Amino acid sequence: MDKNTEAAPTRKPPTPRNGVDTPALFATIGAVAGQPELAKFRFRATNRWIRGTHSRSKMESFLGAGGEHAHAGDFQYDGDHPAVLCGADQGPTPVEFVLHALASCLTAGIANIAAARGVTLTEVESTVEGDIDLRGILGLSNEVRNGYERIRASFRIRGDAPPAKLAEIIEQSRARSAVFDILTGKVPVEIEVDAA
Amino acid sequence: MDKNTEAAPTRKPPTPRNGVDTPALFATIGAVAGQPELAKFRFRATNRWIRGTHSRSKMESFLGAGGEHAHAGDFQYDGDHPAVLCGADQGPTPVEFVLHALASCLTAGIANIAAARGVTLTEVESTVEGDIDLRGILGLSNEVRNGYERIRASFRIRGDAPPAKLAEIIEQSRARSAVFDILTGKVPVEIEVDAA
Repeated sequence: MDKNTEAAPTRKPPTPRNGVDTPALFATIGAVAGQPELAKFRFRATNRWIRGTHSRSKMESFLGAGGEHAHAGDFQYDGDHPAVLCGADQGPTPVEFVLHALASCLTAGIANIAAARGVTLTEVESTVEGDIDLRGILGLSNEVRNGYERIRASFRIRGDAPPAKLAEIIEQSRARSAVFDILTGKVPVEIEVDAA
Repeated sequence: MDKNTEAAPTRKPPTPRNGVDTPALFATIGAVAGQPELAKFRFRATNRWIRGTHSRSKMESFLGAGGEHAHAGDFQYDGDHPAVLCGADQGPTPVEFVLHALASCLTAGIANIAAARGVTLTEVESTVEGDIDLRGILGLSNEVRNGYERIRASFRIRGDAPPAKLAEIIEQSRARSAVFDILTGKVPVEIEVDAA
């Protein structure tokens, strides 16, 4: 078992672990360090209204690392409101996709960081819950906010390192998580309208 | 064409429109107005790490309107990093799901609000883009944030109302959007760890 509990990668040459190509990951970080403009990414989703509160988004391509990249798969996702909110439940609610975004972001970071630190993981599971008072979106109150009042993520992690080191990996993932930052900080959002 | 350009619902009895059961929507809002505890919802996603940066979330049920509700479908979603970021591209990136969440939230609101205002929609399409500098998540800079620096949503909307009224519907959807509020405000996020 690796006794290194520092934040930095171990000094040993990195090896693939947890399904992470650790040498390629380190090479990527090195390349971006030398050419910071490679780090500028633009992600996008296109959405089309279908009926009622049901719509569908596609994520086809994104800009980054100096070029345009197409996703390997056909990524299309439905969003809807549930029956109790007068929707057709043709997909999760938009706010549930926010919880998936947080869980998958933290989990991807955990796998990468564990690999970089020489830790082999056997299990990472999480439950993410968000509390929301719908009087905001229903227009019944200006006192409660429209979005989540709070979010709780609960992680179960197992691997070949002491519990404290596994917990540090989760903490480092949180500290570098894009979605955690998006939720806990403020993102400027601009909306343009073409109405005719 | 409806000439009413006010924010309030028209005085005429609401009728189903745009696939929205407008009378049921108004009845729901009325019920919640009388019993505010019905508005308290708790949404959740459970996530399991698969391999590398690939994980999968399920959204099975949620708490709200005084009880637990199961979704009608089997809602499971993969998240991953793309090849250019050393992932296997088994799903969109977590940050792309944030864009889908925003697009689907605003679009659901647009359909509901248009129905409430007696406007029949024929088309709602949007593109949502987010700019991110990955030096944050790669640990190469403490100057750039981990998440999106900015997000732009561009809407194309058509229906049986003047462009100004259609634009007002989008503005009202933004003003009551849960996901817009989550992104532009700060949500407290707590992380619990079970490591062994």
